[in-house]
This record gives sequence, C-alpha cells and structure tokens, in this order.
Amino acid sequence: MMKPILAVLACISVQSASAQASDSLAIRRLADEVLTRSTAYENLRVLTKQIGGRLAGSPQMVKAEKWGAEALKTAGADKVFTQECMVPHWVRGEKEQARIVSRRRDFVPPLNILALGNSVGTGKKGVTAPVIEIKSFDELEARKSELKGKIVFYNYPFNPTFVKTFHSYGDAVKFRAQGPSRASKYGAVAVIVRSMSHSMDNHPHTGSTRYNDSFPKIAAVAIGLKDADRLSQRIVNDPTMQVFLRTTCEMLPDTIGHNVIGELRGSEFPDQYITVGGHLDSWDNCEGAHDDGAGVVQSIEILRAYKALGVRPRHTIRVVLFANEENGTRGGVKYAALAKENNEKHVFALESDAGGFTPRGFIMEMTDAQRARVKSWTPLLQPYGLYDFDEVGAGVDITPLGRAFGIPMAELSPDSQRYFDIHHAASDTFEAVNKRELEMGAVGMGALIYLVDKYGL
Amino acid sequence: MMKPILAVLACISVQSASAQASDSLAIRRLADEVLTRSTAYENLRVLTKQIGGRLAGSPQMVKAEKWGAEALKTAGADKVFTQECMVPHWVRGEKEQARIVSRRRDFVPPLNILALGNSVGTGKKGVTAPVIEIKSFDELEARKSELKGKIVFYNYPFNPTFVKTFHSYGDAVKFRAQGPSRASKYGAVAVIVRSMSHSMDNHPHTGSTRYNDSFPKIAAVAIGLKDADRLSQRIVNDPTMQVFLRTTCEMLPDTIGHNVIGELRGSEFPDQYITVGGHLDSWDNCEGAHDDGAGVVQSIEILRAYKALGVRPRHTIRVVLFANEENGTRGGVKYAALAKENNEKHVFALESDAGGFTPRGFIMEMTDAQRARVKSWTPLLQPYGLYDFDEVGAGVDITPLGRAFGIPMAELSPDSQRYFDIHHAASDTFEAVNKRELEMGAVGMGALIYLVDKYGL
Repeated sequence: MMKPILAVLACISVQSASAQASDSLAIRRLADEVLTRSTAYENLRVLTKQIGGRLAGSPQMVKAEKWGAEALKTAGADKVFTQECMVPHWVRGEKEQARIVSRRRDFVPPLNILALGNSVGTGKKGVTAPVIEIKSFDELEARKSELKGKIVFYNYPFNPTFVKTFHSYGDAVKFRAQGPSRASKYGAVAVIVRSMSHSMDNHPHTGSTRYNDSFPKIAAVAIGLKDADRLSQRIVNDPTMQVFLRTTCEMLPDTIGHNVIGELRGSEFPDQYITVGGHLDSWDNCEGAHDDGAGVVQSIEILRAYKALGVRPRHTIRVVLFANEENGTRGGVKYAALAKENNEKHVFALESDAGGFTPRGFIMEMTDAQRARVKSWTPLLQPYGLYDFDEVGAGVDITPLGRAFGIPMAELSPDSQRYFDIHHAASDTFEAVNKRELEMGAVGMGALIYLVDKYGL
Repeated sequence: MMKPILAVLACISVQSASAQASDSLAIRRLADEVLTRSTAYENLRVLTKQIGGRLAGSPQMVKAEKWGAEALKTAGADKVFTQECMVPHWVRGEKEQARIVSRRRDFVPPLNILALGNSVGTGKKGVTAPVIEIKSFDELEARKSELKGKIVFYNYPFNPTFVKTFHSYGDAVKFRAQGPSRASKYGAVAVIVRSMSHSMDNHPHTGSTRYNDSFPKIAAVAIGLKDADRLSQRIVNDPTMQVFLRTTCEMLPDTIGHNVIGELRGSEFPDQYITVGGHLDSWDNCEGAHDDGAGVVQSIEILRAYKALGVRPRHTIRVVLFANEENGTRGGVKYAALAKENNEKHVFALESDAGGFTPRGFIMEMTDAQRARVKSWTPLLQPYGLYDFDEVGAGVDITPLGRAFGIPMAELSPDSQRYFDIHHAASDTFEAVNKRELEMGAVGMGALIYLVDKYGL
C-alpha cells in the first residue's frame, strides 16, 4: 500500500514544485516591473503636493477624485467609474487657539492644538476654564464630581512597549473617540486629548471623535506631546491656571462624494471581483501621504503593473479609491451596499491603509483554513519581506463588503515603527514616504492578489 | 519500545516549553527596558550632532573615543579600556571641484562630486580631460586603447530589482574599489564613479577605493545620480566636452587610533568573551548616524539594559567600538590580533553595521548546526520582527576575530530599503534615524546575545 501513496505524493510534490517555480517567476516579474518602472511614487507626489490634504466634502477631494479617475485610466484600467455617496462635511474653520491663562502673567507660548475631526467648536468667543488632568476612564469616573465647568485633559501616554504600534493606538484611541462625551456627561466644557503618538516633535495628531447624542457636544482638541507634558507640569505648579480654547469647526449637512473605481477585466470570471484599495480622503491638516495616499497609489500600481506585464487575471480586479474613511467610513459602506444591491459576486478584498512602509505581511479576517492557505505561500512571499500572517483584522474600508459577503479579507501590514510619528499630523507628508518601501508594499499586495486570483482561498 | 522514547520526548518537550516561556519573559523584559528607557537615541544625538563625522585619524575621532569610553562607563560597564592601533590617516583637503568644460561656453552648474576615500588628489591645478563613459569592466577592456589621457566615468546603475539592497551594493561596488587602478592601467588620468545608491537626490556617496600598486595612482571621485545622468547626456551631445576635476586629498602617514571597549563581567565564564560592537569611525562628509553610529549606540544599549535589569550574563560581554572600519578595517584586525596574543577565549561575535533600521534578522557565518540552533529560536525572536536567518555573512569588524578563532559570527540585518539612500552621503544624519527602529535593533541584538550566552551555539 505504501508505494502507490508515495507515488501519488511524489506526483503532487512534483506538480507543486513546478507550480511554485512558475509562481515564483511570475512574482519576480511583478517585483521587477514595480521596482523598475513603478509610477506609484510619482502618483503620490502629485496627489500630496499638487492636491494636498483632502477631507471628504472638501474642494480638494473633488480634485482628488478627478485625479484618481485619470490615474486609473493612465494605469490601463479597462473601465473607470465612480459611485456617488453622501459623506460628512466637517470643516475645521479658523486656526485653533489655545493658551494658558494664569494670574502669574508670565509669558508662556501658546499650546499647539488641533481640533478633533467631527468635533464642534467652542464658539467664536472661545472657552476659558480650569483644567483637570485625567489618565484613565476609571479616574474620570472616580472624579466625576470635579468635572463640572472644567476642561478635561486626557493625558494617557502612548505605550512604547508594544512592538506593533497599532496595539499602542488601539490602547489609547478610546480617549479620542469616547473622551469628549464621557467628560461632557459630568459637565465638562471641553476636552484636550494627548496625541496618540510617540513622536519626538510637538505636532498635534487629529482623528475622529464620536459624540454620544445623550450628552451635550463639547469642543475637543488634540495636543502635541511636548505641550501635553508642559500643560501637565503647569497644572501641578500653578493652581490658578486656566486654559483658553477657541475652535470654530462645525459639521455642515452631508454632501456628495465618490468612490473612484478602475477595473482590470477577468479572463475566466469577469463577473467575480477581487477588490483592492485604499482611501482617497485624508485629514485636512496634512498631505495624507502615508494615510492613505500610499494605499491609493499602491492599489493603482498593481493594476498598472499587471497591465504592463500583460498579466490577465482570472477574476476582475477592482481598484477602489474609497470616498471617506477618516471621518465616516461612508465610502466602504456604500461600496458594500451597492455590491449587494447589484447582486455582485465577490471573492476577496485587500486594503492598504497602514502606511507606505516596508511590508512585513498581512493582517487577515478569514477562516483558519484560508489563513493556512495564505501561510502555505510563505516560500513565495518571504523573499519580499512578507512573513507575518497571524494577526486578525482587516481594513476599515473593505470590512463592510467582507462581512456582507462573508469573503476573506486582508490588509497590508507594513512595519509600524514610524507610523504613529506622523499619523494624522502635519508631518504626514510626501517626504516621509520612501520610494522603495512604498513599492515593496505594492509588490506584496500584487503577489497576494496573483495567488488568490490563481488558486482561490 | 515506543513508550519510553515518547516519554523522553514528552519530558524534553515540557522542559523546553518551560524554558521557552522563561526565555520569552526575559526577552520581553529586555524589550520593555529598551523601548521605555533606552539611551541609544540620545547617545546617537550627541555622537552625531556634537562630534559629527569622525574619520580615523581625525580630531573628531579623538573626541569620539573619549565620548565612547564615557558612554560605556555611564551605561554601567564593569571595566572600560582602549586598544591602541595604527590607522590610516587620509584627509580630504579642500572642497572638491568638478565642472564641464566645453567650447560651447554655455552655462552649466558644477558637478556634485566627492573624492573617494583613500584616493590621491589631482594636484592643486586639477586635471582637465575628455571623459569616456564605461558601463562594465568588459567594456573597459574592449575600449582600453581609448582610455589614455581620459577621465573614465563608470556609470553603472544601482540595480533596483534586488529586494535586499546590499545585493545591489555588492553588484556595483567593484567600480569604486577596483575602477581607478583598472582605468589607470590603460593610461586614464582620473576616474568618476556613479554613486552606489538609488536615492532621489544628488548627493555623491563616497567610500574606499583600493589602488593596485602596479599602476599609477589616479584621482577618483563619486558623483551624485542626477549629475551622473547629466554628464552621461552631455557626453552624447557634446563631443568637445571635457571635465575639470580638482581634489587635494592625500594619504598621510599612519596615526594612532583606539578600539574603545567596555565589559560586563560574566558570572560563570568571566574569561570567555561574547563580542558585540559597531565602528566608531565614520566618513567625514556626514554625521555617520546609520553608518555606524547606530551600531555603536545599540551595542552600548545592550550593556546598559542588561545592567539596569540586573541581568548577569554567564560569559563576559564585550562591547567593542571599533577604531577604523571605513578606510582600513584596522580596528577589527587589531582586536583579533590582540585576542590571539593574549590567548583569550571567544565564543561568539555580533556586529551591527547595516544601519539603524527596523530589524529583520541576522546574517550569519557559522556551521549549519549552529544556524539551525539560531533558527530554533525563531518563536522567541519573531515577535520582535526577527525571522530572516538564512543569509551567509558577517560584519567587517568581527570577521578577523571570528575567522581567527573559528567562532560563530552574526550581523544584525535591518530592513535595507532606505540604507543606500544615505550610505556614505551627507544625508546620513541623525534625523535619518528613527528612535524606535534603532531601539528595536538593540532589542534583537540583546535577545540573540541572551540566548547564545545561555545556551551556546
């Protein structure tokens, strides 16, 4: 009985070795194409330097949509179209102001702050109030009787001991998301949140807050790390201190935005889709280069490289530049809703929204068997620096689609050491992106799509 | 027969699981210490910003040696000492000049060049000669009759398709090392070498050249990539073009330098050494932050963190700041020679000289069995981003020791995408180093030393 089994095994093994050699060559060709002739970096330069920050609903976003459609055509898409969707329309208003007000009347430089996305303003006159420093929600609850009329300063430090910095972010972001309403519940008049970063500079890092409609909406700002430390010391040293805050941001009625989509038509299953994308919108206070210009230009680059190499996928590859991730996720929600409405068939979705840094693997939301299949491709992927396939999760924009269709999802997982230095801060610029690191991310994404398209999951 | 074997295996497996849990905790403690309280980044700031470029034999190198000894003491070394060694004493002289000279008399900006390390000067009057562009040594040999009286311009592009950029460097560096003498053999009067880089800027990248004493020594310079392209086009378009080159660098008689060494005394085998180090010298045209300030401060950090945690290694750990890597390797040679002379016992050597970027593994020169042992530690190392242990090689400074003693050697292998953007160029500055990436390298090195010290190889 052994011999036939061994013969079968040997046969499978030979087939598999030969398939692996051919896949290895195909991925090598893709890498050579991207590393030699990629337009991703130049596309990123145009998006960040000529268009710049592009919050959903802003005039810059209208320009970005036009640019995205053109870039997809230039890359060789068989079809380019848009999906209209309503997006939040939040405007920052005038430059935020914050300063320490004290009976000491000593000179202190203004505090470097930035309104949180979707937050309300203080009103034109601003607000002046004593500041109470809070390090946890437990402390907030314990001191709830002290909050009335105060500015709550959430000064929770970004934990440096997580190797993957997204875990530090996950640990701290609750103060930005829930902090304003939880403070407002007890009568606080405004909130200052320590930036979610371990950068060495003083840039404040914005990001969305979410109000709980049961409580009054109060103004909320992020503060740079150096100024957070300065404010914390001052609270200890100067009991008379108050802070003046002024923000004029406001939420206008929803407006129209678009997902911008380019397709590379499948040869065998043209009506079955593999989605790959990033979000076209960014915060308004930066160039949105890593977040998420990188994901946008990497996704376009995959289409360009496939087309340039004459690679014809079996399934239709859809490059989706999502309309609104930062302050609403409306783009991803709309994409999933239309896919359902149109009875589309989806097989896999991939996103890049964790920065244009050197790739290390993919975080994935899929069955154990599917994950095992991706891991079986390690010999093909590890030469490109991709070895980490254990983490569970997926990108914000593809999750509505993936959950609606029950399909496997993945998000590019780049090295995260530098991400929160620049995330949602003015320092997220084109210059912070390295050309080769960006390209290596596109190589990794293109390789995974190649394998999923060929073998399924 | 099966049962006893299984019982033994089960026993080993239980022991091993418990040892692994304790090792995992020990490495976690080390990582927490480094990521929370590291002095590596601040040490690097002082070394690069207060001392700056520090070529062997330079006054800056004398300052760097003093700084290194102090830093080792501050880190908690049980013993700090130096080893005197003779080092080359090359000086760059006046700022290099290069310009296109043409009958066209059109305005052309000067060429951005930098003398190669150890190269001779052109003489104060400079040299003006026609330029011949050469793309390979085969082409050089084929056109040897055309070289007399010419400046040879090696314009070999840095290959972008190698994923690990050190392979691109290995592919191109022969033109810098051998190019001048191979051109001089056929009567060339000077050499211009395209910088070994795929950076987007125009900085020239220096590095050592090696003359063959059989041929006249001729001046040799590196040229920035943009100017290399400009020069190449001009050669095609302007047959009357010549280039004027002026360098006044010279090799002075050898002078005195020092390896700076700090020890953490071993508890069980105090007379058996584990060496860990980087080179203190750097090129003079940059701050030598990645090359190799990073390796220096990472090595010191391991000692600091061990001491701070009360980790007492079994073997004595020697942190060695080598005296002269860039233009002579004299520090490493001296260290090995003294180790032999003093009948020292060495068990392992580790170096960091590939930049302070996020780590991916180690390149290693050791037996297959030793490599397999390191690979068996993957579950302990991969959580810190270390998974790549396949590449063969070791650092320049530890190789003389490792070969003399026949001991296993390793070099930290960081992500290499950004290294040749800044390698040996003015852009190798403190600002190009990310604090966390630097620290993660120290964590990886400290973890490997912990395991080798505990289990041997």
